[in-house]
Amino acid sequence: MSETDWIYLNGEFLPASEARISPFDRGFLFAQSVYEVTSVYAGKLIDYEPHMERLRRSLAGLEIVPPEIDFAAVHRELIMRNQLQEGLIYLQVTAGEHGPRDFYGPETLTPSVFMFASARKLIGDAARDGITAISQEDTRWKRRDYKTTQLVSQSLAYRAARRAGATTAIMHEDGIITEAASANLWIITADGVLITRHLSSALLPGITRARVQALVGNIKVEERAFSLAELRSASEAFTSSTGAMIAPLLAVDGQSIGDGKPGPVTRKVQAAYYEFIGANLSAIDWL
Amino acid sequence: MSETDWIYLNGEFLPASEARISPFDRGFLFAQSVYEVTSVYAGKLIDYEPHMERLRRSLAGLEIVPPEIDFAAVHRELIMRNQLQEGLIYLQVTAGEHGPRDFYGPETLTPSVFMFASARKLIGDAARDGITAISQEDTRWKRRDYKTTQLVSQSLAYRAARRAGATTAIMHEDGIITEAASANLWIITADGVLITRHLSSALLPGITRARVQALVGNIKVEERAFSLAELRSASEAFTSSTGAMIAPLLAVDGQSIGDGKPGPVTRKVQAAYYEFIGANLSAIDWL
Repeated sequence: MSETDWIYLNGEFLPASEARISPFDRGFLFAQSVYEVTSVYAGKLIDYEPHMERLRRSLAGLEIVPPEIDFAAVHRELIMRNQLQEGLIYLQVTAGEHGPRDFYGPETLTPSVFMFASARKLIGDAARDGITAISQEDTRWKRRDYKTTQLVSQSLAYRAARRAGATTAIMHEDGIITEAASANLWIITADGVLITRHLSSALLPGITRARVQALVGNIKVEERAFSLAELRSASEAFTSSTGAMIAPLLAVDGQSIGDGKPGPVTRKVQAAYYEFIGANLSAIDWL
Repeated sequence: MSETDWIYLNGEFLPASEARISPFDRGFLFAQSVYEVTSVYAGKLIDYEPHMERLRRSLAGLEIVPPEIDFAAVHRELIMRNQLQEGLIYLQVTAGEHGPRDFYGPETLTPSVFMFASARKLIGDAARDGITAISQEDTRWKRRDYKTTQLVSQSLAYRAARRAGATTAIMHEDGIITEAASANLWIITADGVLITRHLSSALLPGITRARVQALVGNIKVEERAFSLAELRSASEAFTSSTGAMIAPLLAVDGQSIGDGKPGPVTRKVQAAYYEFIGANLSAIDWL
């Protein structure tokens, strides 16, 4: 286990190696379970409130009663106990353990809460050098706007990408892109217009996606569905996500996008985002 | 916990109350996890081999290496330790615990195995009196032929059914039925033809479904997609599943199917199935 040492589980802070739940938990039996991952930079939580708002929305969608926990305090305590400077806080809320396995569950689903911290570089190689992707049919369920732990499609997509020597997968339905396997996707046209898919039940409403929209200033943004063909002929492309922040996408299915290098608009978006989180831009020599 | 006392977890038999897994298990974090439920009647497993065959297929679909366990012996041991005469054996295999959370996981996913026994009446009130359903858009992922623990849609469908005073939900895509929330669906036309949807990635290949096909003898069976409208105008309907076996479906969305009572063809199918599992038909006074 290379996750940092202390985790939080149903009211207790424990060493990660001691964390145990019941296999009768509905998160385990039914994946009736939602999650959030919030980034930490220089010891501070990034866009914490929007993550909590999305969590409440996902919980309502799965009919799980929101836990009466001071989540902000638990986040802070995990940052402190793990001396986390840069990384992620993972938060999972399940429908809890409720006796015998049955699909209905009790009227009121009392949640279980699991959280851990993970130290990692957020402005790393992927941000500097870019990533590559395969394209893959999106086999996920129809309510992708809820952030559930039903993540088999994503896991299989990542595994297929790795086998193909790529980093991630771009998921599509009949050639129309939904998003990347765990990130939203953006393309930049020859005219310098940023395009990302409009929000709906087809994709996750990304917190980093919303932040990029707020930060791009005078770059024109279009929110609409776009195709794999448009991605292939775009000038630039990048993904936005909590864990990888802004990652230049250089190729899909072995074919370069634009000139196959991180482009100038992508670099501008990265700079704006890194400035927002409080990074020292002058120390990022590739930017 | 009203599950029977002894469970099996990764090589050990334990009291149910002592069963604990790591929340870092990929079954918990990613629902990368498949399951089977096999019925036990008069202390004997019903259609055990087809369940194991489907399990192997689901495991391959999720890229989980099949556990090297004598599953038959564990099933028998659970039946013995729990003195199970009538009920179910639940079996879940996950992609296991593999250190830090990441979507890829290691090349080889070494599984976790969890099993428990559950005493319950298999030829019960639902079989005698029938069930009712609501109809509900099928929001599941696209590979429903793999029996994964991604069961949020099913759980929400059952909860919606309960709120509407019904037993279960009939799931459909644009009015074309896939199956019931955790059972295959059959309708019987005015001509006495049995119709059930043909197998594809749209629905689970039910073990009880296959058994019914093998048992119906000279009743004509058509395997094809059918609509909610056809269900509403059918003479009879029933569901097939491991847990409820053959359950007459009497109404959908508050509207009776046929005369709203268990029909003669359904009763014939029940009799054939109960005979197959070794039940004493003369003791079932409503048949």
